[in-house]
Amino acid sequence: MFMKHELLEKIKSPQDVKNLDASQLPQLAEEVRDVIVSTVSQNGGHLASNLGAVELTIALHRVFNSPDDKIIWDVGHQVYTHKLLTGRYEEFKTLRQKDGLSGFSRPNESEHDIVYSGHSSVSISTAMGIAAANKVNGKKDCAIAVLGDGALTGGLVYEALNNTRNLKDTKLIIILNDNGMSISKNVGNLAKKLAVMRSTKEYFKFKSLAERIISKIPLFGKKLADKILKTKTDIKNMMYGSNLFEDLGVRYMGPIDGHNMEHLCEALEGAKNFGHPVLLHINTVKGKGYSLAEENPTDYHGVAPFVVEKGLDKASNDNFSEKFGDFLYNQAAKDKRICAITAAMSLGTGLQKFSEEYKERFFDVGIAEEHAVPYALGLSKNGMVPVFVVYSTFLQRCYDQIMHDFALQQGKMIIAVDRAGIVGDDGETHNGIYDAAMFNGVPNILVYSPAYYGELNKDFVSALYHSTTPVVVRYPRGKEPYCPDDFTITGNAYDIYGDKMAEYALVTYGRIFGEAAKACKELKAKGINIKIIKLNEIIPISTTVYEELENVKKVYFFEEGVKNGGIGETFGSYILENGLAPRFKLVAFPDCFVKQGKVDEILHEYQLDCEGMCNVILKDFGKVNENE
Amino acid sequence: MFMKHELLEKIKSPQDVKNLDASQLPQLAEEVRDVIVSTVSQNGGHLASNLGAVELTIALHRVFNSPDDKIIWDVGHQVYTHKLLTGRYEEFKTLRQKDGLSGFSRPNESEHDIVYSGHSSVSISTAMGIAAANKVNGKKDCAIAVLGDGALTGGLVYEALNNTRNLKDTKLIIILNDNGMSISKNVGNLAKKLAVMRSTKEYFKFKSLAERIISKIPLFGKKLADKILKTKTDIKNMMYGSNLFEDLGVRYMGPIDGHNMEHLCEALEGAKNFGHPVLLHINTVKGKGYSLAEENPTDYHGVAPFVVEKGLDKASNDNFSEKFGDFLYNQAAKDKRICAITAAMSLGTGLQKFSEEYKERFFDVGIAEEHAVPYALGLSKNGMVPVFVVYSTFLQRCYDQIMHDFALQQGKMIIAVDRAGIVGDDGETHNGIYDAAMFNGVPNILVYSPAYYGELNKDFVSALYHSTTPVVVRYPRGKEPYCPDDFTITGNAYDIYGDKMAEYALVTYGRIFGEAAKACKELKAKGINIKIIKLNEIIPISTTVYEELENVKKVYFFEEGVKNGGIGETFGSYILENGLAPRFKLVAFPDCFVKQGKVDEILHEYQLDCEGMCNVILKDFGKVNENE
Repeated sequence: MFMKHELLEKIKSPQDVKNLDASQLPQLAEEVRDVIVSTVSQNGGHLASNLGAVELTIALHRVFNSPDDKIIWDVGHQVYTHKLLTGRYEEFKTLRQKDGLSGFSRPNESEHDIVYSGHSSVSISTAMGIAAANKVNGKKDCAIAVLGDGALTGGLVYEALNNTRNLKDTKLIIILNDNGMSISKNVGNLAKKLAVMRSTKEYFKFKSLAERIISKIPLFGKKLADKILKTKTDIKNMMYGSNLFEDLGVRYMGPIDGHNMEHLCEALEGAKNFGHPVLLHINTVKGKGYSLAEENPTDYHGVAPFVVEKGLDKASNDNFSEKFGDFLYNQAAKDKRICAITAAMSLGTGLQKFSEEYKERFFDVGIAEEHAVPYALGLSKNGMVPVFVVYSTFLQRCYDQIMHDFALQQGKMIIAVDRAGIVGDDGETHNGIYDAAMFNGVPNILVYSPAYYGELNKDFVSALYHSTTPVVVRYPRGKEPYCPDDFTITGNAYDIYGDKMAEYALVTYGRIFGEAAKACKELKAKGINIKIIKLNEIIPISTTVYEELENVKKVYFFEEGVKNGGIGETFGSYILENGLAPRFKLVAFPDCFVKQGKVDEILHEYQLDCEGMCNVILKDFGKVNENE
Repeated sequence: MFMKHELLEKIKSPQDVKNLDASQLPQLAEEVRDVIVSTVSQNGGHLASNLGAVELTIALHRVFNSPDDKIIWDVGHQVYTHKLLTGRYEEFKTLRQKDGLSGFSRPNESEHDIVYSGHSSVSISTAMGIAAANKVNGKKDCAIAVLGDGALTGGLVYEALNNTRNLKDTKLIIILNDNGMSISKNVGNLAKKLAVMRSTKEYFKFKSLAERIISKIPLFGKKLADKILKTKTDIKNMMYGSNLFEDLGVRYMGPIDGHNMEHLCEALEGAKNFGHPVLLHINTVKGKGYSLAEENPTDYHGVAPFVVEKGLDKASNDNFSEKFGDFLYNQAAKDKRICAITAAMSLGTGLQKFSEEYKERFFDVGIAEEHAVPYALGLSKNGMVPVFVVYSTFLQRCYDQIMHDFALQQGKMIIAVDRAGIVGDDGETHNGIYDAAMFNGVPNILVYSPAYYGELNKDFVSALYHSTTPVVVRYPRGKEPYCPDDFTITGNAYDIYGDKMAEYALVTYGRIFGEAAKACKELKAKGINIKIIKLNEIIPISTTVYEELENVKKVYFFEEGVKNGGIGETFGSYILENGLAPRFKLVAFPDCFVKQGKVDEILHEYQLDCEGMCNVILKDFGKVNENE
């Protein structure tokens, strides 16, 4: 590792990949892997998934002409090689840094990144739109979707495949990068079926056999390539049983060894010339080329910085996800009704112990957030208490089910929202700053936003045993924030901190209360007394909170969430409607997607840290923060 | 039609259905159809779909023990017979009326309605949750999902089926009520495949053949029913090709004649005793028993009141959907980039003409709202201008794609939101009062809410030719409201109406501007002058709007949408933050799901009609509206 990148440093565009001699490609792959491992070891990022797709990506750029042929990367956990081959080698060291390269596909970086990506299972749909436009305009370019087997657990893929009939004569090419894994082990009937398909005779081994058979079947004038591919698949289906993809209307070809460059290029050429929708089943090894990642592909899927020779540090359990997991695990021992549901995120959400101990009450449904909610409803209708744990950004995928199968039904159901707030390095496709506004318009639910582990536990106890409505508990990525010694965790709807009699109130919720508490002390040192109203229940806002505004001249609301439609606006509108305080200032995320950076960098940029809060308030007092 | 209901009037519960002699069932079916046709002809409702499921529903209640065995009705377009057989015959005349029976499954009506239903494709997931709870608790009850073939185009079904592995030994029974139709003709590869399956030899005809084969296969001790069903299916698959459902892990049985009571009961008994997840493929005729509906099942899917002997009146085209359809049809002739996408709603959204004339640019994707958005993205990335037309309530299904594949991408894409606002008779699962709040938190989009056809056209022209961001145009069900002679349609971000110098401002948007205009005149007659600010662009709100508040003492904001997170709160919060007007009153829908009723009844109930607006304002002036 950490070699000289003789080939890679000369590659400025896909054309340079095409210009290499085939014999140089193994070296190119090695150089790419070297850059990926060294960069990710320093910056953190998605490691094992990217290592598995190196040869595949090189082959794609050998065979297709990006950006006329458009490659759509599903999620983007496999896009690093593509970045390195499309003129971004020099910048690659800025990966996932503020103002640096994104870890996902981003059109503002390169014409070869067709769309912004980050969420799963949409790539086939997008490629189909591209293919449909090619058809209307009589263009012969290819539309290529590259997705992992994990993405196949999302229903969107099936909606897309069901609609390929319109595209019969287009060059729609679906590349299934099958490593047998989602982030962790893939689940479901389809995964089982794929496992069987993976292990059938490889396409190119099978080919010679099939060709011997085909040579005995007369061909009646139809295009040769077409006929051969079709006939071969038919024979294969006869030999190996039915094929789901063929049932759904796309030609299946595979499996193909995803680390054999020659086979890859030949298969991609075949697909390119086929002229009809085709799915190529590519077998890859997650983590390929870095032995630690090959051995533990789940742990090495997405990683924090590490030392290449040593591998990952033992993960700390000082974070909200693990504390939630511990709570639920302990509670499940006492309460046999508790079930846990995850959408392919058992590791990230702290459910590992639960999944091992309470197998019968643990459900990993794959990347199927939509299914998770009505499934939880069914459990609740039959006496269980389901807790669906999901990242804030992926929660967006089940908004209709939150309305229809959660809020409307009024059963005992809980949604635990992890990664609420800024997530940091993953950037604009992953920030959890929209869920509060999203939940705000949903009737009949109760939403908690704890700042501390102790509150997290109390909120879940309330949700489990004292609530009659569906409950949401949302909490951030990472560890609990600074907690002042003189703050007591109550689990009440709200808490008051600071100077209870102050004429200036700072209202906030969630982890940035820690920053607010610091600001309170700093301002006090400057002779400005404020009272902090820390909301724990953010939807609905308890009307008694507003009684605290008596004698308050100005309310400062700081929200780690989007401004429009958020909690701050509800608060401000209520104040005005009820004539409670004459002045109001709301600091929250404006009407934009917030880019990558460290959490504290971003909170600072948007005035949501102690310094920002102090500056906003001091400005009103005509003072300037000396730290500035 | 309109017969005496000798059997039906005595049926108070499913037990009474079981007590009938089998020979009486055809008469029961006839009586049920009579009630359905006569009631729907008077109240409007879902006709053809309900007529197709009469025998199936009777058979379900003969074989299963509701509510221990739990029947989950997908959507609920087939639930009328179930209502009539579970003690609601007397109330059935109140169907879809205010405070009457819902047209959908509603737990507050009966213990036999397990969940609130209205949206498609969730029933298998819910039934699976019920089955999983039965498994945990060692119960042998059945969990039954009943869904149409249209629902199979939604990806959620696939997410569910992919997860049936956990439920191997449970009594999960999926009833596929296949009439070859969604609301209109079903689409996609699966529909094609189902059509083949529909036309294969019927299960019970096949059975005798299979039994002759099976009789020659030795059975090794395994449970007889299990073995026979499995073996028969295997033979059938061998004979008829592969089966998608079997690939996805559930046993397939069918097709079964859905109007043959004996076959239905026998098949359901088989499924009940099988003990593993099974899908029964039932062939039904949409509209069965009412010849006009059988001949035109699409037109008779959901109907307004009509005369039974004559059938439906010719539909008027005086409504937003048709005006939108006309606009897009005309524009598409001039602009070859325009594409239309619908999720199985071409008829309801006015796209019929477009679909016939511009086949290559028209895409009915099935009930696949999620797929529709990234598909539109692909089209837009390749030079087309896609317009995705969708009902407000079903738009909820693609919230994540609106974020990830629409707002974030910044391409030229348009979402046309039909049925925005109160929809009336369909009730709490269908009202379009949440989309404004939902869009409010979505960055980087422009949302129009026209009140009149003329504005609708202008807004779409702006969206097509003058906008650089993704655009949403939302408009209500039905016809345009009252328009005062002295109001001129401008298509501007906002318009001012009434007394421009008044100290009281009424702010509103969308169709209830018509009510506001009436209120303005009524108040003037009482000596109260108000100025109306009518927003056309609701997201973002143009900052110049606020300049109109100079000298305004109080702002009344009326919103046909949910209050929390909505446009009114954004407006109110901004006013307070910028010290623009001292007083504010916001009238919008509170934190609840709004039940069925006529649109004007509901607007009246929530003070969103002329009278309500006048009352709210007069109250401040110490006057009482004499109409009250």
